[in-house]
Amino acid sequence: MRQGKHISSLQNPLVRQILQLKEKKRGRDKTGLFILEGQRELQLALRGGYEITKVFFCADIISLEELANLFPSVAADIEAIELSREVYRRVAYREKTEGMLALAKAKSHKLQDLEFHRRNPLILIAQSPEKPGNLGALLRTADAADLDAVILADPKSDLYNPNIIRSSVGCLFTVNIAVDSSDEVLQFLKEKEISLYSAALTASQLYSELDYTGPVAIAVGTEATGLTDRWISESDASVIIPMKGQIDSMNLSVSAAILIFEALRQRNFD
Amino acid sequence: MRQGKHISSLQNPLVRQILQLKEKKRGRDKTGLFILEGQRELQLALRGGYEITKVFFCADIISLEELANLFPSVAADIEAIELSREVYRRVAYREKTEGMLALAKAKSHKLQDLEFHRRNPLILIAQSPEKPGNLGALLRTADAADLDAVILADPKSDLYNPNIIRSSVGCLFTVNIAVDSSDEVLQFLKEKEISLYSAALTASQLYSELDYTGPVAIAVGTEATGLTDRWISESDASVIIPMKGQIDSMNLSVSAAILIFEALRQRNFD
Repeated sequence: MRQGKHISSLQNPLVRQILQLKEKKRGRDKTGLFILEGQRELQLALRGGYEITKVFFCADIISLEELANLFPSVAADIEAIELSREVYRRVAYREKTEGMLALAKAKSHKLQDLEFHRRNPLILIAQSPEKPGNLGALLRTADAADLDAVILADPKSDLYNPNIIRSSVGCLFTVNIAVDSSDEVLQFLKEKEISLYSAALTASQLYSELDYTGPVAIAVGTEATGLTDRWISESDASVIIPMKGQIDSMNLSVSAAILIFEALRQRNFD
Repeated sequence: MRQGKHISSLQNPLVRQILQLKEKKRGRDKTGLFILEGQRELQLALRGGYEITKVFFCADIISLEELANLFPSVAADIEAIELSREVYRRVAYREKTEGMLALAKAKSHKLQDLEFHRRNPLILIAQSPEKPGNLGALLRTADAADLDAVILADPKSDLYNPNIIRSSVGCLFTVNIAVDSSDEVLQFLKEKEISLYSAALTASQLYSELDYTGPVAIAVGTEATGLTDRWISESDASVIIPMKGQIDSMNLSVSAAILIFEALRQRNFD
């Protein structure tokens, strides 16, 4: 990391670029870049092999030296640009972050590039998750469970939405993620001979009575309407978590975690 | 329900009362009243035996007749007060709610009054949960799991905080809840011979290797620091959910749900 320029004007083109990348999917799509914020996020992005192209810091909060010590793996030729307090306040999501943002290159998330670390992979599929917060929570669970992959089918937003990064507490960067259409994902599962267990509110099989020790993908749908009929009909099993309360739904990430940890339990957490 | 007055002034004392009850714990504590908002919330509060003392509605969204049809169990002498669009906008949490709020009486949540519906009760204990959203999510899972009770030890906010009501999607009203100090709760568990299993990040026993078929209380601590040492040392077992990711924490409500549904699985969801 090398000391770059100092920005104190809100009109600076780089400030406008940061804001555009944070706020607009279109900006991210066009450039293939995104903004991340905070120490843990930057740490996990580096660990996840993301390429950082610029670092921004607020010297009122952290010095360049401290920053360089925290992140020795950032290449020496990467510019660390100092932001005035006012500029930092404008571009940071919350003032309590640790005084750092970074510009990073999005990864490609092609289905065909997925590699699994288990011989019998355990995968989570989310079809069109609606709320960034829910997707973030799913990624956090996927990290904890060390899933082989999370596959997003027909996503409604791009992965690098700041709300997804934030609610995943950076797990977006550590989880093996692929994104594709439902068509392609269903085809992929068949080719790879991965069983598909779909979560449904009216389903034929109790989730705990299925065998998760082979190659398995657990699929969940949107909060509002669940998986589409197509997913259910192409499943090897549609699974239900019995609920006996006054309302018949649990949070999406809670349901997914119950299914994932039942699979891990059956695999002896191996 | 009977047609009450019409309020179109933001200065009306009832409007000020609504705002105060929504925004101030002190106001709720002093009066023993709270405000709930939305159709499902009102439905669940009535089902949970809460006493509704006044209903407010916005005639632009719902008519008195529709309201009365939806809630035949609200007594005939309860006043339904019409709010102008402007007043409703000011007092409603979000504009998309169904045009209704209600003033209701808080329940007492005494430990000694708890009654369990299972012979071997299954209980969740949350010590000092910090974020209303997390407590709401716990209550939603507790409803789905039909737990015998949720006990809050040393809570940091009052139960009728609007963010708790909202994030519990009204399950606050359907779950059997007691609130007391850690001292009293630990004493209560001993008296009732209920085993205490405490979730901990460094724990001696894998959660799935314990027996949950007897009377059991599962305890979880705060997001930041977990349960206090006292809880851990007074537990029959401290339990761990194995995590193998880059970060070593899952969302509080996700962890609790994994433990609760393992208990239900062992009980054959009975």
